[in-house]
Amino acid sequence: MEIVSTIREMCSISDELRKGGKTIVLVPTMGYFHEGHLSLMGEGRKRGDVLVVSLFVNPTQFGEGEDYEVYPRDFSRDKSLAEGTGVDILFVPTMEEMYPEGYQTFVEVERLTESMEGRFRPTHFRGVTTVVAKLFNIVRPHIAIFGEKDFQQLVVIRWMVEDLNMGVEIIGMPILRERDGLAMSSRNQYLTPDQRKAALSLNHSLQKAFQLFRSGERNPRRIIDAVKRVIEVEGEVTIDYVEIRDARTLEEIEIIEDQAIIALAAKVGKVRLIDNVILREG
Amino acid sequence: MEIVSTIREMCSISDELRKGGKTIVLVPTMGYFHEGHLSLMGEGRKRGDVLVVSLFVNPTQFGEGEDYEVYPRDFSRDKSLAEGTGVDILFVPTMEEMYPEGYQTFVEVERLTESMEGRFRPTHFRGVTTVVAKLFNIVRPHIAIFGEKDFQQLVVIRWMVEDLNMGVEIIGMPILRERDGLAMSSRNQYLTPDQRKAALSLNHSLQKAFQLFRSGERNPRRIIDAVKRVIEVEGEVTIDYVEIRDARTLEEIEIIEDQAIIALAAKVGKVRLIDNVILREG
Repeated sequence: MEIVSTIREMCSISDELRKGGKTIVLVPTMGYFHEGHLSLMGEGRKRGDVLVVSLFVNPTQFGEGEDYEVYPRDFSRDKSLAEGTGVDILFVPTMEEMYPEGYQTFVEVERLTESMEGRFRPTHFRGVTTVVAKLFNIVRPHIAIFGEKDFQQLVVIRWMVEDLNMGVEIIGMPILRERDGLAMSSRNQYLTPDQRKAALSLNHSLQKAFQLFRSGERNPRRIIDAVKRVIEVEGEVTIDYVEIRDARTLEEIEIIEDQAIIALAAKVGKVRLIDNVILREG
Repeated sequence: MEIVSTIREMCSISDELRKGGKTIVLVPTMGYFHEGHLSLMGEGRKRGDVLVVSLFVNPTQFGEGEDYEVYPRDFSRDKSLAEGTGVDILFVPTMEEMYPEGYQTFVEVERLTESMEGRFRPTHFRGVTTVVAKLFNIVRPHIAIFGEKDFQQLVVIRWMVEDLNMGVEIIGMPILRERDGLAMSSRNQYLTPDQRKAALSLNHSLQKAFQLFRSGERNPRRIIDAVKRVIEVEGEVTIDYVEIRDARTLEEIEIIEDQAIIALAAKVGKVRLIDNVILREG
């Protein structure tokens, strides 16, 4: 595995690879790998000739008072996990190169980013789309792979790629969960043992939603109310939102037709977690 | 000369050209070619293997009440002028493909676009940077050529390319002028004969600025005042702004050191014109 830390070097490598007809796959990450990341890398390994993983804790997607400074980092562990998963190039750009003095350009997907996560983290998606646009321009992947845990992020990125004609195929991969059902997240390690238990209510509530859907419930309001009741039993958990939306456009829906996404965010103590389930038959 | 009207076809052509090691040059235009455009194409012809000219009257860079609907168009004349200038590919995308229903992604360079043109046309540069980002993704040029008449646009595009790591070399070409000194513009044809005469005061005022600079004046305020006095003699001309700024950062300056840009915008009747001169020694 090659470690590349300058933009110039990464650009010249990807240019050569493209000229040589190689298919480049990119998995963008903020590091502190868990099995969720590794499953994205495993999929990437299968889909292309050259697997690039970027590791960059992107400041522009954190809001004021969020956990940018304390976001977990462990480069030597990440390095050996990436190597063990068959990554060809680990791209680790510096902050100074990604956001040099005078930096002032942002990519913004508008309507899609106003609701759900965007309502609670108003500058978050602007930071995500900007850094992903930069990474796409530097790495020039044919395919990029994202997890479905950040479901809105996945929809926003698909929309950006389409609108700006980026020509990158975007693949979403299912959420990986701990044995007890908690969605894997680099932020889970912040949880105390009691909070860890309370956090299970998020997955339980979504399972409840899924059961209701499978037994024929198609009214979003009634499903959302049931979900909230499951979570609100836990005193330490405060809900930011629970929403059911069209899975492609994230538009609000009156009745669930063939499929929808139910997504939620909640704080467990000070730790903010997100989770979701796709509601579809079969 | 090949005429390409779908994004998909343009992408596949540029992909093949890049794989074949060809240097692609793009001249983005809104059509209604004058000698200024042709000079950009001539330069492009010299600089690469394949010269692509895009022709698209981009709605997102026009504000409400501006001249989008009546912007001059003459495709058959443009086609023969492009052919005669050695253009290889004329890329003429449709509105429906460039901005399909649900379109919502924009690229914005922030501080640079707040002053000068941006103050009078608040959504203009957002439209420019968005369409240029799209064209760069579709045509994948190594080099792109812009005129210096839209001087702020040139600076904004350079900044976007740098910030988003687009890897396109941006070349600015000097303003071409009519025999009497009026800067060439597709909008000049709107002028009545009297307005045409009054519009000359713009170039005259900039010549005055240049003379003052060459004779040692380094105080922006005094040069700007002299420029305004030249223009204000013409009753039919109303000034939007006259500004002297750093030519690279467009920051305001107290004293002109090695070089600066003096740029102005004014309405002659209802026709809004811009012009500028670089103030530098030698």
